[in-house]
Amino acid sequence: MSEYDLLDTKSGNSVVAAIDHGLSLGAAEGFRDPEATLQSILKGGPDAVLVGPHFARHYNALIKDAGVDTVVTADIVSSSTRPGFDDGQDIWTPGFDTELLLDLDPKGVKIVLVFGRDDRQMFVRNLSYIAKMAEELRGTDIPLVVEPVMWGSRVPTELETHPEYVSRAARMAWEYGADILKLPYTGDPVTFEPIVKNAPIPVMILGGPNTGSTLEMLTGVEGAIASGARGIMIGRSIWKTDDPTSVVRALEGIVHDGKSADDVWDV
Amino acid sequence: MSEYDLLDTKSGNSVVAAIDHGLSLGAAEGFRDPEATLQSILKGGPDAVLVGPHFARHYNALIKDAGVDTVVTADIVSSSTRPGFDDGQDIWTPGFDTELLLDLDPKGVKIVLVFGRDDRQMFVRNLSYIAKMAEELRGTDIPLVVEPVMWGSRVPTELETHPEYVSRAARMAWEYGADILKLPYTGDPVTFEPIVKNAPIPVMILGGPNTGSTLEMLTGVEGAIASGARGIMIGRSIWKTDDPTSVVRALEGIVHDGKSADDVWDV
Amino acid sequence: MSEYDLLDTKSGNSVVAAIDHGLSLGAAEGFRDPEATLQSILKGGPDAVLVGPHFARHYNALIKDAGVDTVVTADIVSSSTRPGFDDGQDIWTPGFDTELLLDLDPKGVKIVLVFGRDDRQMFVRNLSYIAKMAEELRGTDIPLVVEPVMWGSRVPTELETHPEYVSRAARMAWEYGADILKLPYTGDPVTFEPIVKNAPIPVMILGGPNTGSTLEMLTGVEGAIASGARGIMIGRSIWKTDDPTSVVRALEGIVHDGKSADDVWDV
Amino acid sequence: MSEYDLLDTKSGNSVVAAIDHGLSLGAAEGFRDPEATLQSILKGGPDAVLVGPHFARHYNALIKDAGVDTVVTADIVSSSTRPGFDDGQDIWTPGFDTELLLDLDPKGVKIVLVFGRDDRQMFVRNLSYIAKMAEELRGTDIPLVVEPVMWGSRVPTELETHPEYVSRAARMAWEYGADILKLPYTGDPVTFEPIVKNAPIPVMILGGPNTGSTLEMLTGVEGAIASGARGIMIGRSIWKTDDPTSVVRALEGIVHDGKSADDVWDV
Amino acid sequence: MSEYDLLDTKSGNSVVAAIDHGLSLGAAEGFRDPEATLQSILKGGPDAVLVGPHFARHYNALIKDAGVDTVVTADIVSSSTRPGFDDGQDIWTPGFDTELLLDLDPKGVKIVLVFGRDDRQMFVRNLSYIAKMAEELRGTDIPLVVEPVMWGSRVPTELETHPEYVSRAARMAWEYGADILKLPYTGDPVTFEPIVKNAPIPVMILGGPNTGSTLEMLTGVEGAIASGARGIMIGRSIWKTDDPTSVVRALEGIVHDGKSADDVWDV
Repeated sequence: MSEYDLLDTKSGNSVVAAIDHGLSLGAAEGFRDPEATLQSILKGGPDAVLVGPHFARHYNALIKDAGVDTVVTADIVSSSTRPGFDDGQDIWTPGFDTELLLDLDPKGVKIVLVFGRDDRQMFVRNLSYIAKMAEELRGTDIPLVVEPVMWGSRVPTELETHPEYVSRAARMAWEYGADILKLPYTGDPVTFEPIVKNAPIPVMILGGPNTGSTLEMLTGVEGAIASGARGIMIGRSIWKTDDPTSVVRALEGIVHDGKSADDVWDV
Repeated sequence: MSEYDLLDTKSGNSVVAAIDHGLSLGAAEGFRDPEATLQSILKGGPDAVLVGPHFARHYNALIKDAGVDTVVTADIVSSSTRPGFDDGQDIWTPGFDTELLLDLDPKGVKIVLVFGRDDRQMFVRNLSYIAKMAEELRGTDIPLVVEPVMWGSRVPTELETHPEYVSRAARMAWEYGADILKLPYTGDPVTFEPIVKNAPIPVMILGGPNTGSTLEMLTGVEGAIASGARGIMIGRSIWKTDDPTSVVRALEGIVHDGKSADDVWDV
Repeated sequence: MSEYDLLDTKSGNSVVAAIDHGLSLGAAEGFRDPEATLQSILKGGPDAVLVGPHFARHYNALIKDAGVDTVVTADIVSSSTRPGFDDGQDIWTPGFDTELLLDLDPKGVKIVLVFGRDDRQMFVRNLSYIAKMAEELRGTDIPLVVEPVMWGSRVPTELETHPEYVSRAARMAWEYGADILKLPYTGDPVTFEPIVKNAPIPVMILGGPNTGSTLEMLTGVEGAIASGARGIMIGRSIWKTDDPTSVVRALEGIVHDGKSADDVWDV
Repeated sequence: MSEYDLLDTKSGNSVVAAIDHGLSLGAAEGFRDPEATLQSILKGGPDAVLVGPHFARHYNALIKDAGVDTVVTADIVSSSTRPGFDDGQDIWTPGFDTELLLDLDPKGVKIVLVFGRDDRQMFVRNLSYIAKMAEELRGTDIPLVVEPVMWGSRVPTELETHPEYVSRAARMAWEYGADILKLPYTGDPVTFEPIVKNAPIPVMILGGPNTGSTLEMLTGVEGAIASGARGIMIGRSIWKTDDPTSVVRALEGIVHDGKSADDVWDV
Repeated sequence: MSEYDLLDTKSGNSVVAAIDHGLSLGAAEGFRDPEATLQSILKGGPDAVLVGPHFARHYNALIKDAGVDTVVTADIVSSSTRPGFDDGQDIWTPGFDTELLLDLDPKGVKIVLVFGRDDRQMFVRNLSYIAKMAEELRGTDIPLVVEPVMWGSRVPTELETHPEYVSRAARMAWEYGADILKLPYTGDPVTFEPIVKNAPIPVMILGGPNTGSTLEMLTGVEGAIASGARGIMIGRSIWKTDDPTSVVRALEGIVHDGKSADDVWDV
């Protein structure tokens, strides 16, 4: 039914729980015990988990036993040379060998594309790496997932989900080689729908820094799905909550069954 | 009749609609819906479209069905780390793998050569990449199109099309390996004709930032063709207008049939 | 019994005497005569010595005759361009060819991961090298030992063993590709045990700059072993003492036989 | 008779007209029409022309028909990111693929070695490239021509031909791998002769920026030949004159037939 | 008798005349005529000459006819972008292709290791190159000679031969891959002997900038040999004198025959 295994579900959409944060944040509050967090997420039955390749390697048995697919993160991004801190520093690098990534049998390979950086050279390397990875995945059936984000200090936080920024960034991401977009949601279907429609590739949405309530997050997902998004790749809004299992299940209700946020979440 | 497929037309000239701007500008006003813009251009029947390689990949069927050729852009140039903004920053990088480019069966591969940069190292990489791509294309029948432009901040805007700058830049571009030049038009045949005559390779002209009227643009094209130019690679002056189809057709009248701007455009 | 030869001992733990300091410090006080220091350590009967590859090459016969294994250091780290001085400069580089390392038949390959650096590019290269070496060792049975440390000037000395820093750094180290962690001990089992438990790979501890007494060091090791650590890779606290042989033996008592520091060391 | 085809002439010397300036200066005054300039030079019957590889490619038929050899320039040097301007900027890069150069069947490959630069890294890359090209040409019978010049801003213009600078630079150039030296003439045989004698390889002289009269230039050439130089590689002092054909012929009289400047040039 | 051809002499020591200075100094006073200097040195009958690879190439016949071996210099070091000047600039680069070096059939390959630099990146590249060359020479019987020196501006001149600096630098040099050390002599056997004894590889001494008398230099060599050094690699103190032949012979008396400086040199 779909062009990629990842989206070859009943609904054609996919729920991907993002748990690759150890690469950037180290042992973050709420995700210090990787196995416990993983288990609570797998119990919710997501379609896939987004993980670092060595996370995938160490917890492979658990993930496979749960019948869950993996999408792997290929690059490393951070905001400080101190472990897991945010000092506003531009730090990014291609991470892992493509052969390692492919041997993990992933349903997708994910790279960020960080706009707004002060460090032009790092931005340029980021562009080149997307183009290079797109070429390395060509001829496999594994899609390149690009996540264009506005994390650089030259974009004020309040504009990171602005439709103008998101639509331009989305366009650039697939022009550079993305097969699937992992986009920030702009907040409403009116502005998000044309972004989805204008992309010749599937759009999924990211979660961002779990600042609001779970219901708010789910309402956003509802809007994104209504706008034509093909699913979600959300992390902190799942594992930072008290009950990741239930949040994953709620997401499935919206993403696969077309339910509303209110249907699936009881505040 | 011609040395390259691209110029193997009845007139020996070529009309190439440039729609590779998503690489630099993202979803620009007038080109937010890539398919719609592409369709309106294809309807005008250009000889080829200049596109990014992933654009070519996604819209391949449409382009082929229209019997239109492709010229692909090999590099990425931008003026900001913010998506699609112009912050006067020097950003340029070799973009795409040559194997990908060649697999798209292009009638040309295009690279910019940006003069006037503050960043000497970036300029040097730009030079090297042209020489390297010229070598990678040697032995194929695909010409390397180099577009020497004066976008760097060390050249004032009003001098970007000055004959002295254009003639020097043109010479350097083919000395570095260009097979076809995509030049700024100097504004009149008196200054442009010797530039065309002194180049041992075909010259085509670019459009630049659609600032004047369509008639003015077409008058420029008329002058360029009169100067010996072998066609055009124009973008914004086509797709930023209300009726790209008609603009493409008007260009064909001038480029292929030797008509005047007044013949083909009714203000 | 164990996943790696290095830990395939009766206790499943390992005592590794670190004597790779010549790479960073040159001929340090207490370690000026490499053969004498090596002999006094080998006499104590450690499971392995951690050495530079050329140290391994020159003293191979002595080490093999003593029935001791080697773990080799793959990178070079220093704090000054002056030999063996500490001028607070960020200096690090991948050191040795993987083929050389493998030909030495090591039971592990060790790389530092220095957090807190001012030099972002050096940090990025450090990350990349870990990922690259992890890939080069994949398919061999030689574990990649990563030593995440907080030596950069952006982390105050008193926080270098802080549980928050150590736990984050440990997580990042294995997400980047470590097979065994060489961690700073946090000072007490309460904070160290969860760090060990949350790692999907074996944890060993480093010694640090021999500032306290041998008994204090051994008490730390006792705590680390009680926290689940699988052994030690300690250097200066061994070879800077008057009697390296006895210190190695004392470490074995704690690491392999579960004795207390007081059991094995008479002040 | 000679070690290289280039010097295998009746006199053992060679007259090489340098017309590779498009690489640096673009369409320079006096050399805007490349074919016309080339023709007027070929008519004079030089032994070879020094050209960029793509110049060689485009005008190959003309050059071959004239029975003239080519020496090709392998690197690109400039003084500005603006086309053909001199803004005192350090710009240099290895230019062209060795395979392209060799396919042109050159009688020599030329690289500059610019001393006095502010940019140490560029100087270092220049050194490395000479050593690398020397190795790539080893085993062919094509000599590496190195042109050591004092163009960097750290050497005052009036010292650019000073014997102390020229002798040191010449020595370094062949120690790095030159097979033939293209040197600035020091101005008199007394200082130039020992430089020629102390070099284990042939010395030819460059022309420099045509500041004096043709007679002065020819007098210099006379002195250089008297000092043991094996010929000339001169450009601007030929093509910037009104009659390049005659200047080339005059040079032949001096270089091949041992005539004086006065013999060959009538002011 | 010895592990390397270079030291396979009757005494097990070696006299190497260093004449690779053209790489750094250009045509230095006293060494302007390379052939004359070489001849006067060969006449003294050294065991080997230390030369740049292209010097070796051009004067190969002379050296071979004299029955003298060669040690080749693999890197390029300088103190200025001006030719042969000392402007205190950090300039260093790997120089020559290993294949070229090996084809010259050398008895050793020499690299400097410059401590005390301001330029950390250059220092790091220097380290990496030593490790890389050590690997490239592994499996041949050609030793890697490393010359650790304190030329960087961060080490005051008066400390360049200080035992603490020399001993640390020596240790680092072999830990990075040296097979033979070319060390500054500390000035007396009391401090130099432990440095020699603590190295698992042969130690030879360098000459430094010929500042004292020949007798002083020879007295130093006497002390070094008494300390266990296996010979010398000395240049300026030979070729800057009036009678290089005699200085070489005097060195042989000390290095091979165990004579004193007074025995071999009549002031």
